[in-house]
Amino acid sequence: MKRSGFMAVLALVLLVRCAPAENDTERVMEKFSVSSPSSVNTVHFGLNDGQPHYRVTRFGQEVIGWSALGLELKDLPDLVNGFEVDAHETFPVRETWEQVWGQSRYVDNHCDVLKVFLREKEALGRQLILEFRAFDDGVAFRYEYPEQPGLETFRIMDELTEFRLTGDHESWYIDAYQWNRYEYYYQNSPVSQADTVHTPFTMRTADDLYLSFHQAALIDYSTMTMERTGDFTFKANLVPWAEGDRVRVSETRVTPWRTILMSDFPGDLITSKMILNLNEPNKIEDTSWIKPGKYVGIWWGMHLDKYTWHPGDKLGATTERAKRYIDFAAEHGFDHVLVEGWNPGWDEAWYESGVVFDFTRPVEEFDLEEVAAYAREKGTRLMGHHETSASVLHYEAQVPEAFQLLEDLEVRALKTGYVGHGTEIVRYGEDGEELHEWHHGQFMVNHHLDVIKKAAEHKIMLNVHEGVMSTGLRRTYPNMMTSEVAKGQEYNAWGEAGGNPPEHTLLIPFLRNLAGPFDYTPGVVDLYFEEYRPDNRIKSTLAKELALYVTIYSPLHMAADLVENYDDHPEAFRFIRDVSVDWEETRVLHASIGNYLTVARKDRHSEDWYLGSITNENGRVLKASLGFLDPGRTYVAEIYRDGRDAGWEEAPYEFVREEVTVTSDMALPLRLASGGGQAIRFRPAE
Amino acid sequence: MKRSGFMAVLALVLLVRCAPAENDTERVMEKFSVSSPSSVNTVHFGLNDGQPHYRVTRFGQEVIGWSALGLELKDLPDLVNGFEVDAHETFPVRETWEQVWGQSRYVDNHCDVLKVFLREKEALGRQLILEFRAFDDGVAFRYEYPEQPGLETFRIMDELTEFRLTGDHESWYIDAYQWNRYEYYYQNSPVSQADTVHTPFTMRTADDLYLSFHQAALIDYSTMTMERTGDFTFKANLVPWAEGDRVRVSETRVTPWRTILMSDFPGDLITSKMILNLNEPNKIEDTSWIKPGKYVGIWWGMHLDKYTWHPGDKLGATTERAKRYIDFAAEHGFDHVLVEGWNPGWDEAWYESGVVFDFTRPVEEFDLEEVAAYAREKGTRLMGHHETSASVLHYEAQVPEAFQLLEDLEVRALKTGYVGHGTEIVRYGEDGEELHEWHHGQFMVNHHLDVIKKAAEHKIMLNVHEGVMSTGLRRTYPNMMTSEVAKGQEYNAWGEAGGNPPEHTLLIPFLRNLAGPFDYTPGVVDLYFEEYRPDNRIKSTLAKELALYVTIYSPLHMAADLVENYDDHPEAFRFIRDVSVDWEETRVLHASIGNYLTVARKDRHSEDWYLGSITNENGRVLKASLGFLDPGRTYVAEIYRDGRDAGWEEAPYEFVREEVTVTSDMALPLRLASGGGQAIRFRPAE
Repeated sequence: MKRSGFMAVLALVLLVRCAPAENDTERVMEKFSVSSPSSVNTVHFGLNDGQPHYRVTRFGQEVIGWSALGLELKDLPDLVNGFEVDAHETFPVRETWEQVWGQSRYVDNHCDVLKVFLREKEALGRQLILEFRAFDDGVAFRYEYPEQPGLETFRIMDELTEFRLTGDHESWYIDAYQWNRYEYYYQNSPVSQADTVHTPFTMRTADDLYLSFHQAALIDYSTMTMERTGDFTFKANLVPWAEGDRVRVSETRVTPWRTILMSDFPGDLITSKMILNLNEPNKIEDTSWIKPGKYVGIWWGMHLDKYTWHPGDKLGATTERAKRYIDFAAEHGFDHVLVEGWNPGWDEAWYESGVVFDFTRPVEEFDLEEVAAYAREKGTRLMGHHETSASVLHYEAQVPEAFQLLEDLEVRALKTGYVGHGTEIVRYGEDGEELHEWHHGQFMVNHHLDVIKKAAEHKIMLNVHEGVMSTGLRRTYPNMMTSEVAKGQEYNAWGEAGGNPPEHTLLIPFLRNLAGPFDYTPGVVDLYFEEYRPDNRIKSTLAKELALYVTIYSPLHMAADLVENYDDHPEAFRFIRDVSVDWEETRVLHASIGNYLTVARKDRHSEDWYLGSITNENGRVLKASLGFLDPGRTYVAEIYRDGRDAGWEEAPYEFVREEVTVTSDMALPLRLASGGGQAIRFRPAE
Repeated sequence: MKRSGFMAVLALVLLVRCAPAENDTERVMEKFSVSSPSSVNTVHFGLNDGQPHYRVTRFGQEVIGWSALGLELKDLPDLVNGFEVDAHETFPVRETWEQVWGQSRYVDNHCDVLKVFLREKEALGRQLILEFRAFDDGVAFRYEYPEQPGLETFRIMDELTEFRLTGDHESWYIDAYQWNRYEYYYQNSPVSQADTVHTPFTMRTADDLYLSFHQAALIDYSTMTMERTGDFTFKANLVPWAEGDRVRVSETRVTPWRTILMSDFPGDLITSKMILNLNEPNKIEDTSWIKPGKYVGIWWGMHLDKYTWHPGDKLGATTERAKRYIDFAAEHGFDHVLVEGWNPGWDEAWYESGVVFDFTRPVEEFDLEEVAAYAREKGTRLMGHHETSASVLHYEAQVPEAFQLLEDLEVRALKTGYVGHGTEIVRYGEDGEELHEWHHGQFMVNHHLDVIKKAAEHKIMLNVHEGVMSTGLRRTYPNMMTSEVAKGQEYNAWGEAGGNPPEHTLLIPFLRNLAGPFDYTPGVVDLYFEEYRPDNRIKSTLAKELALYVTIYSPLHMAADLVENYDDHPEAFRFIRDVSVDWEETRVLHASIGNYLTVARKDRHSEDWYLGSITNENGRVLKASLGFLDPGRTYVAEIYRDGRDAGWEEAPYEFVREEVTVTSDMALPLRLASGGGQAIRFRPAE
């Protein structure tokens, strides 16, 4: 039954995907434009027969050709044609704000704004506002529809926003509307071969300019995917409700921002703050309980089939094992200990059986109160776990009590999960009929924000798996720490190809991580786990697995392996133990999408810097200039690198830890083996 | 007559270009290999049916598949098949040497060597030695044929050296065997679309690895071009003598090195020292008179048609004008003043009339003695000029007297020219018949080395135009300062497309300049010169024209404009006046072939650093980390940048000079307009 519901909606989506006729953009009359603070990027606004259009240039050259804007409504005249300009205003924004946590402590929000107030010439005379923001590293825009006669509560049937690219750029993406949400390997093709894709959608032009399309501040709206409607033209394709409409508008009177990052160096995509700047400032008054941290947990063992989520001989979540993990966390300074399978509902068929989980009491093998107390005594904390199996209504009903329980236990971090395919999320229609929603339609967008707000009330930091792609909400709700929505470490345990290919971690930073923090769960140091999953392995060298802590951004990072495995790799573990997850500053030293990446980050809570450098299946030599270090200061570089004969395929454990003394005027050659990497901690020598 | 000679040789070349059958490389038996010091690159040696082969891997992955080696001889059994290994040796080279001048003062020569001593199993039992050198940034190899019975003086009819690439890499090159020598715009295509090309031949693989093929130490041999013989396979194609043989071997018993640079960052091609390391150490004992420098001259005026080379109303080379240029040079500290058209032979048809020039006396309008003396008195020097019109025998006859004259005048630098198309170089055969040689065959290779040696005897530094592509001989003969062999500034004056396209200067550093210094003659600040050449212009912003002094490497750099034009641009001229041409150290900060480049160089004779950053027709924003500056020191950055609305097409003069205080821990955003650039001098603040 679930399957058929899924197929029905999929068919609907396919039906509405017929390409619109190409617009006659040559007749667009430019009205206004706004340029970024250093006059790098310019957004142009124009009307064509009363339909709003925009165009983007960079140093005067076209990046996005005249592209249509507009909203088609249900049972109301569309907000598409017949507009004239009522008024417009431009103003600069020049501010610097401090993050509660992040890739950098301070964020410059420098942009120039153009607001265009449109009004229908005839008919209802309704007002539509378009707001454009030009940053030096990208542009963004959104629609605003103030509440007014003739435009109170309404439904958006289609958002016509176009993105007319200027050429057949090389691009990276995953297809939208697939059963497994966002958990696919990235595709790499000219844009003309893409179909309907998720964002971030990243491109490289023939002139070596990098573009990445996404959205910011997705609130009370549906996720935008991008559908190709011409050779190089894409159009917003909003994930629909089960009933086929796309967005239900009532209180929220603005769309999310449509964002286009532009940079000459792909590393500048990574350090862009544009998406954060487009979100509202922090709304949580007391943030003293919000702290980035590292965690261990009873999790990887289940993916290896060493343990089970469900009770029985191999149950992972026992009181004894939890205490063993807490001891380890306490000894090495980890902040949280995740335990999965602690609550009733896990059985071998949980995934098929739907509404199963109880979030308010533990299974009898697991003494929740005792474990939480033991953790607190030891100076660490239990991390909560709520696998909802995408039974959202069932979960929502339990949230108040479940969150209160976590607060009572002084748990500060919660991992949630929404395992469920395609449109398996059930809600009930007006006549009580069962309806099936996508994971990333407006229904779930609203669910997730509701959970974030409720979690904040209970001082709970969130780590959301199988959720909605990040859009920078962590600025507004900094308890929204990290999320998954991409293929993570667990695919190494049981993924079909025997494990993630070496380039996967070279694509994540330029795609998934541009949206926000990613709980990849690195740090598996037993790379073969032959005893449990002989057909799978981790296709990295040991040094690369360490470097991922720096190259993949997350304020919550797991040391994902069975804790006993760290005993076999004490030198490597030292980096995992030491590395920070909260940063004063981030610099990207080398970047090539899918090929290599070097990131240096300064710890926000000490004088240390950390560097991670990784490569795909090709060995590399990259020179890292250490100019980021304090001038005149001597540092000890604790280097964790591939050994001379290392390589992911034959010799992943060939590994060297060494210490050398360095200063800021030096350049370190980073020698990365095939599938390899290098991790460095720089600490002041004195 | 000249034309028909040219066509005859061209036909011959085309005839011998039939592709050889693909070798059966699967049967190659690997014998030995040698890996670079950090085990990055490995050269493998093997035999297939007695024919030597090599293969190159990088971190274990193939970069060059098994490729054949061998030499076909005239009237002697070939040195191709039937070999067995007599002996082999491997040894490390770890040395550091100091350059007389260069892009960096000190050069590390770190490589590992494999020498394979082959002997014919049967027949003549002749010995052939192959020497391979593995560096961390490339590999090289050459043939050695010791003098021995059966192998005294001989002629090479073909060098079989193959380069079997592993894929259809993107590549940049110019075609070989064209009438205009090396003066073409670079082509950009997959290697499978290349035909027979000159080196350096530069490539980017799909994995973002950069390769550049060239040669080192071209002495007493013919220039190697690379001919495509399979989809991705190239073969050495040696420029032939008029008689069709390729190389005449007598005293010199080694071939030039065949060089393959390999790097992950295209900027590392630019800073590679491999080609220099493969040349012999300096053979000039007293180098006190060899000094990098800058020059002005009576030259650009002729290209503008403001002046003429030939006597008459518009003659450029008058005593008075020379003194005016000397005054300018003296006032601003230029080292040399070039005067072209000073000697008899220039008439309007000089280029058609062949043997015309006298290098031992001036025209009557030009008082050579007086001008040279005036220059010396003022603290600068006249620069000699010998346009040979490719009448090489005629020139060689005059060299002793002409060089003695220069020495007597205390001239220290000489610009030579070999204007002449295709195979217009005349020599006489055994029966006295007129023969026509290519500019880059063995005949001219030997001529040029002979001139270098003779120049050294007279304390003359050379700046050779229309010569042979550089191969690092400047290490051995550091009076060989710079040369042309590419499209330079003069094509802006009268080139067919109205001037060099903006990307030309973004290709030079990754192609022409990888071979050695290039006398591009930058510094034209009157970008339109409408009065003289209204259909042409310089397709750069003013700031980019300044940055070229840093991005294009040459130890002799010209300030090419009419000196009076600098009066109109005093701020811009200040950089031209200040910039060094001799470097303690060079770092490449940003590099994308054909797109953008940022180079920082430390002056060898002060504490200053200079930075040049340039882009093609696309505006860019690049962040320059200043970690190269001395830690803890404050510098004044004298910034010469594009103005807010600058762009080569509409506003090339929009230009800002400003001074800011900087330290090594800063990162400067470089905003480059379309066709723009930025030049910076960093001088210690105190």
